[in-house]
Amino acid sequence: MTRIAICAPGKRLEREYADAVIDLAAGRAGLDLVFHRQCFARHGHFAGDDATRLAALLECADDPDIDAVWFAHGGYGSNRIAAEAVTRMGPSARGKAFLGYSDTGYLLAALYRAGIGRPVHGPMVADIRRDGGDAAVGRALDWLCGEEGGLEATLDERPTAAFNLMTLAMLCGTDLMPDLAGHVVMVEEVSEHLYAIDRLFFHVTQHLSGIAGLRLGRITDVPENDRPFGTSEEDIARYWCDRAGIPYLGFADIGHDGANKIVPFGLARAPGRA
Amino acid sequence: MTRIAICAPGKRLEREYADAVIDLAAGRAGLDLVFHRQCFARHGHFAGDDATRLAALLECADDPDIDAVWFAHGGYGSNRIAAEAVTRMGPSARGKAFLGYSDTGYLLAALYRAGIGRPVHGPMVADIRRDGGDAAVGRALDWLCGEEGGLEATLDERPTAAFNLMTLAMLCGTDLMPDLAGHVVMVEEVSEHLYAIDRLFFHVTQHLSGIAGLRLGRITDVPENDRPFGTSEEDIARYWCDRAGIPYLGFADIGHDGANKIVPFGLARAPGRA
Repeated sequence: MTRIAICAPGKRLEREYADAVIDLAAGRAGLDLVFHRQCFARHGHFAGDDATRLAALLECADDPDIDAVWFAHGGYGSNRIAAEAVTRMGPSARGKAFLGYSDTGYLLAALYRAGIGRPVHGPMVADIRRDGGDAAVGRALDWLCGEEGGLEATLDERPTAAFNLMTLAMLCGTDLMPDLAGHVVMVEEVSEHLYAIDRLFFHVTQHLSGIAGLRLGRITDVPENDRPFGTSEEDIARYWCDRAGIPYLGFADIGHDGANKIVPFGLARAPGRA
Repeated sequence: MTRIAICAPGKRLEREYADAVIDLAAGRAGLDLVFHRQCFARHGHFAGDDATRLAALLECADDPDIDAVWFAHGGYGSNRIAAEAVTRMGPSARGKAFLGYSDTGYLLAALYRAGIGRPVHGPMVADIRRDGGDAAVGRALDWLCGEEGGLEATLDERPTAAFNLMTLAMLCGTDLMPDLAGHVVMVEEVSEHLYAIDRLFFHVTQHLSGIAGLRLGRITDVPENDRPFGTSEEDIARYWCDRAGIPYLGFADIGHDGANKIVPFGLARAPGRA
């Protein structure tokens, strides 16, 4: 039996998304999804206030009967509780996977920095609402149950980390930021103008010296601007990588969409496995 | 005679804004506005490509017959040329004021870090288009001609710097960022959701330890969100200042509007002056 606890460190989860994922998971033997009631709490922008979200995360992480913690949704807010969360997590957290992306990248970063558990970039519960949402959620559940078919295809023998670009930019230089020297760093973004993408690359590339290289995930839902930016997102990534002396390695199969693949932080596979 | 050179390190200037400022300045004796032709260049998002914008900035800065450099517009792009600009500026740049805000904050920061000239936060040429635009432009011209009536009212004996919040966030940790220890730091923002303001404060407050304190300028044109954030911009500023051990000092009279006041980087007035 694989027991997965679900909490929402940022935005609240709609009941209908939880129900859809419960239905989808019902056909799987040996899987138990445990939705923390905090997923459905409301406090302004957030799924409960900071204390409520922190307490739920700690309950999920510290429960010895739980195998993995799955984040319900991104939105915004995990940065407000991440530092205290990793400070307070107990020994039961150390054996668990923590799966999410987007805003929950603050938590993945903080966990990776602290050496707690296994942070993993991949689809969340609320991705069930997307085109291809069933496949995305299935991919996440497969990985949590030990299947590796959903791993991002370019993962190799180098340690890797994947982030939303804005999340990574806000992490840089903070007490949540892990040491990414020698890592392949993948970034993706949604709903930002290309000039903002350029600005974010200016910032993050100056903080990523020493990484093995950068891969560009999908940049989606770019808003129309009053004038075209003039270059593509890949030109932007190449330009700033070149200025910073960072190898640009090509595309990564991640993004705010149903095709978003699994990227475990560090090495994707245990040494010696295929 | 005060001779002011105008260039556009980011977005191009509309001819009508230049004409309106020329008309407004025509009534002033002893003032000569010199618009560099680069102000009106086009290259995708920018007022000319990087080489064109850099060359124009250097021509303005290095001209010994010019007393001050006034930035035409913000937009986006000065970060792409700022590092090379301060490296290449000659001795004539050192006696000049450089006046702008918003995106041109990257240049103000780089100049301040390099100890070149006098970087000053204040209205730009394109502010003529705003409500109160005549007063804003008049305030900038007054200061450039030696009047101090437009100085931000809270400026005191402590060195000060003023930034757009996003610009400051992108500056943090880069080769353009000046040492702001002991400074009062003022920030303002426009057209960002409150959750993004919260996220930016999370980032910048971790980079500003050792400052004398933070003042909050106006946060304007906040977009409607699908749910209210739940706290005000001042609550956000207080919260993150408190977490970082930074004194929160109250409001600053700056913003993306016609009332935007003058904030010279460093000390506002020469010692011994009123």
